[in-house]
Amino acid sequence: MRKIVLISFFATLIFGCNSSQTVAQTKPLSDSEIKKNVDLLLSKMTLEEKIEEMTQDAPANDRLGIPFMKFGEGLHGLWYDGVTVYPQAIACGSTWDPELIKKMASQTALEARALNITHIYSPNLDVISGDPRYGRVEESYGEDPYLVSRMGVAFIQGMQGMGSERFDKNHVITTAKHFVGYPENRRGINGGFSDMSERRLREIYLPPFEAAVKEAQVACVMPGHQDYNGVPCHMNTWLLNDVLRGELGFDGFIVSDNNDVGRLQTMHYITETRAEAAILGLKAGVDMDLVLGKPLDLYTYHTTVLKDTLTKNPELVEFIDASTSRILTAKYKLGLFGSKLKEAKTDTIVSKKEHQEYAYEMAKKAIILLKNDNNVLPLDISKIKSLAVIGPNAHEEKPAKGTYSLLGGYSGLPPYYVSVLDGLKSKVGNKVKINYAQGCELMSDSKAGFPEAVAAAKNSDAVILVVGGSRRTGGEGVDRADIDLFGVQNELVEAIHKTGKPVIVVLINGRPLSINYIAENIPSVLETWYLGMRSGDAISDAIFGDVNPGGKLTVSFPRSANQIPVTYLERPDFIGSGKGAYKDADKSPLFPFGYGLSYTTFKYSDPKLANDAINPDGTTTVSVEVTNTGDKTGDEVVQMYVRDDFASVGRYLKMLKGFKRLTLKPGETKTVTFKLGFDELNILNQDMKKVVEPGTFTISVGTSSLDKDLKKTTLTVK
Amino acid sequence: MRKIVLISFFATLIFGCNSSQTVAQTKPLSDSEIKKNVDLLLSKMTLEEKIEEMTQDAPANDRLGIPFMKFGEGLHGLWYDGVTVYPQAIACGSTWDPELIKKMASQTALEARALNITHIYSPNLDVISGDPRYGRVEESYGEDPYLVSRMGVAFIQGMQGMGSERFDKNHVITTAKHFVGYPENRRGINGGFSDMSERRLREIYLPPFEAAVKEAQVACVMPGHQDYNGVPCHMNTWLLNDVLRGELGFDGFIVSDNNDVGRLQTMHYITETRAEAAILGLKAGVDMDLVLGKPLDLYTYHTTVLKDTLTKNPELVEFIDASTSRILTAKYKLGLFGSKLKEAKTDTIVSKKEHQEYAYEMAKKAIILLKNDNNVLPLDISKIKSLAVIGPNAHEEKPAKGTYSLLGGYSGLPPYYVSVLDGLKSKVGNKVKINYAQGCELMSDSKAGFPEAVAAAKNSDAVILVVGGSRRTGGEGVDRADIDLFGVQNELVEAIHKTGKPVIVVLINGRPLSINYIAENIPSVLETWYLGMRSGDAISDAIFGDVNPGGKLTVSFPRSANQIPVTYLERPDFIGSGKGAYKDADKSPLFPFGYGLSYTTFKYSDPKLANDAINPDGTTTVSVEVTNTGDKTGDEVVQMYVRDDFASVGRYLKMLKGFKRLTLKPGETKTVTFKLGFDELNILNQDMKKVVEPGTFTISVGTSSLDKDLKKTTLTVK
Repeated sequence: MRKIVLISFFATLIFGCNSSQTVAQTKPLSDSEIKKNVDLLLSKMTLEEKIEEMTQDAPANDRLGIPFMKFGEGLHGLWYDGVTVYPQAIACGSTWDPELIKKMASQTALEARALNITHIYSPNLDVISGDPRYGRVEESYGEDPYLVSRMGVAFIQGMQGMGSERFDKNHVITTAKHFVGYPENRRGINGGFSDMSERRLREIYLPPFEAAVKEAQVACVMPGHQDYNGVPCHMNTWLLNDVLRGELGFDGFIVSDNNDVGRLQTMHYITETRAEAAILGLKAGVDMDLVLGKPLDLYTYHTTVLKDTLTKNPELVEFIDASTSRILTAKYKLGLFGSKLKEAKTDTIVSKKEHQEYAYEMAKKAIILLKNDNNVLPLDISKIKSLAVIGPNAHEEKPAKGTYSLLGGYSGLPPYYVSVLDGLKSKVGNKVKINYAQGCELMSDSKAGFPEAVAAAKNSDAVILVVGGSRRTGGEGVDRADIDLFGVQNELVEAIHKTGKPVIVVLINGRPLSINYIAENIPSVLETWYLGMRSGDAISDAIFGDVNPGGKLTVSFPRSANQIPVTYLERPDFIGSGKGAYKDADKSPLFPFGYGLSYTTFKYSDPKLANDAINPDGTTTVSVEVTNTGDKTGDEVVQMYVRDDFASVGRYLKMLKGFKRLTLKPGETKTVTFKLGFDELNILNQDMKKVVEPGTFTISVGTSSLDKDLKKTTLTVK
Repeated sequence: MRKIVLISFFATLIFGCNSSQTVAQTKPLSDSEIKKNVDLLLSKMTLEEKIEEMTQDAPANDRLGIPFMKFGEGLHGLWYDGVTVYPQAIACGSTWDPELIKKMASQTALEARALNITHIYSPNLDVISGDPRYGRVEESYGEDPYLVSRMGVAFIQGMQGMGSERFDKNHVITTAKHFVGYPENRRGINGGFSDMSERRLREIYLPPFEAAVKEAQVACVMPGHQDYNGVPCHMNTWLLNDVLRGELGFDGFIVSDNNDVGRLQTMHYITETRAEAAILGLKAGVDMDLVLGKPLDLYTYHTTVLKDTLTKNPELVEFIDASTSRILTAKYKLGLFGSKLKEAKTDTIVSKKEHQEYAYEMAKKAIILLKNDNNVLPLDISKIKSLAVIGPNAHEEKPAKGTYSLLGGYSGLPPYYVSVLDGLKSKVGNKVKINYAQGCELMSDSKAGFPEAVAAAKNSDAVILVVGGSRRTGGEGVDRADIDLFGVQNELVEAIHKTGKPVIVVLINGRPLSINYIAENIPSVLETWYLGMRSGDAISDAIFGDVNPGGKLTVSFPRSANQIPVTYLERPDFIGSGKGAYKDADKSPLFPFGYGLSYTTFKYSDPKLANDAINPDGTTTVSVEVTNTGDKTGDEVVQMYVRDDFASVGRYLKMLKGFKRLTLKPGETKTVTFKLGFDELNILNQDMKKVVEPGTFTISVGTSSLDKDLKKTTLTVK
């Protein structure tokens, strides 16, 4: 959804209630009971009531006793005021720990229920295509379909609940989005048409949705804004009906993205009228129509235009019945019928202390150490007498309205935000003198603040230099052509570096940036993304060694926008022509997928297969011993990649098929074992069937996606 | 083919004969006679002989009286020494005049016959995807499928001959390449995998091949190097058999690109052995196997490995027979049987004066005037006393071996090359003093030559500044990340501009360059691409007004590589998000498709439809009057674009469907009429059928692809 909608959205909503006490959960109904009840209700509903039921806040119907089902965004905490704001999705991804995401989602569900929200428009299961110009990179877990699948499943399980807790009074419906291929937009511009082979769809974009449906039983799906291979997602019967419902077995409901059914008319120029657009969406399987910001249009659209059309085309009523039925079913599953659930009216803060502490824990786990020459980090608090804190992202005042710009897109307004400056002050108390200077504004070309910043650096024993991006330079609707630091930030880094003081660069941002100067000149660099309301606490811990960074990149950093697209999912280039490189540039990334350092060191044993050879339907395991060879406790993300050495179709050079985050004390060794079977070894053959083909497979295990960081063994499938 | 192969290729071949007198053409045979002869020969050939027949220079067979069929490249003249070198393909495209290309191709055929070459590996029918990082952009006619189709058909007709002249002693076989989708490589790197929907294949890449087969009966097709949607082109049965032979009706033979069958093993890792690779290629329909540079490997590959394999798998022999039959048929069609054709042994120059003059005529037609503030151009020879000629591309000495670097990829070594310096000297004689200074080398960062160049500028009345690229910065195997001027050329432009002298920039290059400084500061700019052996003569004519530039761009110029891909074939972006633009940059091109100025001015009338409304199977025309409103005779390329306003699938905002180059005297008016019928109005519906859908169509006619340069009318299909 776009920014302008966000504003009107915040302006028109009334927030919060102070607990979940108004939610009276009825006992769970069986599927057959739900069906009976839904059929009964359907038979009593007027056409107008059915159509109304299909709108975003599926409203209450007093005549028939139908409760309302309120929506909210919730990618990293709710998109409301007074909520807990957790690390943005790209930072969640960097933890490589699905259990962390699961717990965050379950806490978000509690806050949603406290606001009487039961339908969340998250998670974002888009796999990044290697184009960081695109502003929504930050909303994704990364560039690998397996990693995004694991994180997405965890999110859904945490938020929807599992087993007997599924959709109980502490859980809500999630929405897997954007179905499908949305980041394949041309030129990094949001909503640009996506074009790809069915192979690419199935290899890269579909797996997280398949996992969301089959493993996590996601209750709702949202299509993408874009034209997919000439057929916009919101009217794409093949995608929504044949693939999603038919092949994956999705049995929930589909909600449109904001205004996107209408955009079949106004953006894609498929239909000349809105009613025709609505019919295309309806027939393709869009059950609920999200139209934010224009309530009058919404009313006209649904209850007048569409109703008139349906009256004239009674054969369409079966689609209305099917959609209404799916939404009523969702309300039954949520236990909303018979509850006293009302629209929440209060503006009490729903963020609990416990949740805020957990946001802090997650933030610690997400920090990535990109560089640490000569172990400049961690700083020793006993040896530092003064510390300069510099940069446009070092601090942000509480905004008068809206939300902090350093929390990432789709973030609510938390009760407070701990900036790096706040966090460092709190950490060092009066033991270290803090010299703060902004240096420059994020989006200004003025260097007026440089002298003050240089002076602050010169008067300090070390410098924490916080640069990057913000909601103003990234997020939905903020696509960029360049991926360098915005404004004069790079010049600020140069000016501070020239003071000769030890400089630690902290990046707070939402997309990979081509930080070549920093990578070459600054000894220590932390990538923190947007870490949520407790950002500064976690970053301060990392700076002073109370946290040992253990996050890893889930997106490649290009050396420049000229290299785009850049992901580790490469195929062989033409060997004959300049060895697949550019005449004037290196094509390798500045920092690769899976990369991240630690204050300690790790050693990997050679990977060992339980069996060197298996049958095509067989299973084995690969194990590796990882030892902490340094002197600090630290986390390591062990990664396992697979390549089918020779196969009937072209493949990526390697694909991630397993990962595990470990905590190891100094000297400690742990063994990690990964399964190798159909899921890990299959390829899509020319008939688009998943098969395991006999032959050899290179199994690589190690600390990043780079070949030099991986140890290899060969598995034979006979 | 790669550079290293080129060298060994030149080194190992013996060139030329001085006429076509050794070609004794038998009388044309009917198709049934050919079939009978081929069947007879096949029955007599051994397996070894059949396999040998399937190699690049389908060799002579003395035992059976089979003549040889020698190949050569011939995109803009032959790839040999002593030949005529015409403008590179991108410059051919810029003429927007298919008849010019047709005549060039027919002259090239004569030179080929003089060298006893009868099989040419041209034209290149790849449609540029909007990524000028790719080095082979210069080998294409441009970014529009219709334009490339028209140029490709003309080339094939000119080289193969038409009607009773088809394949006569003055004509040869052409090869449409690279089948298909080759420029869709990721990241602008040659041979990178191409991935696209079937829709994109059919909308963008297939049309030139369809035209080549159906309209021009091209006799040979070459697949692309790349993995197409997971199945390399050289083993892609769907592309080669189902689409090319089945659907398009291609009945010629397929030759591999160099080593590409072998690359199924060594690049794509599909097969573990070369024999398996050969079998995959053979079964997919690759009839002839091009393996340059490694004759021993070729021998081993074909006559040992493949023969052994076939002996063990007799069911494969039918594929050998089919391929051998297709090649023998080609030899019969060429009239080679019964001729005294021998491998040419002499090194006599085959380029005729008449051809060289025609290369000069074409060059004049290809020049594009990008900018001409205050009519700095044309220079008045009576008012200029001294002229500085500066820049790395202003002059090139005859190379000791290989070819000139300013002629573009796949160019032969002409008997001479006229540089801009040569051309200007010849043009002005002793009327104007020429002050020449190189200024800088193309690929060096040294500014040592700047002072001399600045001095030359200061001592002159005007400056001709010739910058751009060369075979060393572009062409196959020379992909770039950046698309700015290489080296210190931009600084040279700045230094010369600062002298305050009138500066004319002449671009000699093979890809669109992001020449922002030049576009902003230099009053007059000519884009000439590589204009062939008479480059300097044509450019001098344009500078002094003996030629009025009338070429138009067939590729968009991005403002920077960060915008890539950039073509006029855009679809709507997401309107809601920043209006489909970048936060930090304009997404529009620096110079658009179809753009080019003139020394005169043109006025367009409103376009008129013969009928405002037609049936879906109906036809009408649109006409426009174009008037030369200036004071010089000039050429204008009238362009006609079509958009189906509302349709059942997503479309590009407009597509070129007609063009016509006119010459108009001052005050003269001509009427141009374009057909509007099925070919112009159809779209590919969701079932991939070409249909004309009822509704309105916006018909735009004008001087470039920019909306502001087009006048519009609306056609209704009832």
